[in-house]
Amino acid sequence: MIKPIQNRNIERALKIGKVAAKLFNVKGYLETNMEDIGNGARLSKGGIYHYFSSKNEILFFVLDNYLNIILQDLEENLQEITDHSSKIEFIISRHIRIYTQNASESKALLHEAHCLPSKYYKTIAEKERRYYQIVAKELSNFFGSKSGVTKGQITVLTFLLFGMCNWIYSWYNPKGAVTAEELSKMILAVFLDGVRKCSGSGPNRNFSHF
Amino acid sequence: MIKPIQNRNIERALKIGKVAAKLFNVKGYLETNMEDIGNGARLSKGGIYHYFSSKNEILFFVLDNYLNIILQDLEENLQEITDHSSKIEFIISRHIRIYTQNASESKALLHEAHCLPSKYYKTIAEKERRYYQIVAKELSNFFGSKSGVTKGQITVLTFLLFGMCNWIYSWYNPKGAVTAEELSKMILAVFLDGVRKCSGSGPNRNFSHF
Repeated sequence: MIKPIQNRNIERALKIGKVAAKLFNVKGYLETNMEDIGNGARLSKGGIYHYFSSKNEILFFVLDNYLNIILQDLEENLQEITDHSSKIEFIISRHIRIYTQNASESKALLHEAHCLPSKYYKTIAEKERRYYQIVAKELSNFFGSKSGVTKGQITVLTFLLFGMCNWIYSWYNPKGAVTAEELSKMILAVFLDGVRKCSGSGPNRNFSHF
Repeated sequence: MIKPIQNRNIERALKIGKVAAKLFNVKGYLETNMEDIGNGARLSKGGIYHYFSSKNEILFFVLDNYLNIILQDLEENLQEITDHSSKIEFIISRHIRIYTQNASESKALLHEAHCLPSKYYKTIAEKERRYYQIVAKELSNFFGSKSGVTKGQITVLTFLLFGMCNWIYSWYNPKGAVTAEELSKMILAVFLDGVRKCSGSGPNRNFSHF
């Protein structure tokens, strides 16, 4: 059983998690050992066991924390927004911002979550599903009951949106030419209105589309 | 150095590759050994070394073959299509079709390519880059020089399209309710025209959008 969080020095635990997530990205979860993490966090091998009983526990701590950030206040914040497109705009910009601020944790979620033992994995999968449900519900509200868009189509569209947002792990450099804000605007523009608006020179041409 | 392909029984080698790709998906590349692959392909451990010198060589063979399928005739086929949106439609439906027909190889490319030694990895990365360049060029032609869409924006848009297409590895079941053809149409519809067309009941409402 994972040690209760209140018994830990939470700041130190978070620092260990940050170091571990970076190591998992670079070396891979299976190739990283507790000694590597201890060295990275400037702790002895014994010292690290004061905070975590195992590497699995560290991975769980990292991913669970990340998903708590993803879910924190999300529904409350969405309730405060009345316009449906603005809700989608909020979801995208928040997703990209949290990703860029927690890139190692996000990559670890995509690449290493399957390494967790099932007792831990279930909690992570449940929180991922919760996030999916919140976004899918907002998309469903965006279309409205009269649109004729089916539940199955909402599922596909939700995952297409996640695809644009999550795939950035493979190419996007937050320190590069495109800011997180610009990237969010482009994802929103493509998702809501598509790229055709930007092509050609006809009346639909829209320079400021992005 | 990898054994020359002409010296092999290519059908048997392809079968070994298929078995290996599935094992990499289920067990992970690092946790799979030559014996597992031999057992899966009904070959002795010695028998498998008749075809491949190492597990790295098998992974390279799998990924290189997959990317050869991705690149094969792509430019020639695109040249035969005159309309720019039809070229994008072709790219998407071809990408989804090749993925669904080679799901294990596609997942191995996304998850395990980084395990390859650099001499192998370079070849794979070069072919991935080639695919990216072909798609980015078509998007650039789609917009045309008068659109004001910058090269940097083309890069982002190309990766957003790849995001929608590649992310399907995490959720899409080719044997489920949505066919590969329907999925391709939805990706095309979102990418070209966005989802707003489907919302509300105004004049822009478009039941047949998907």
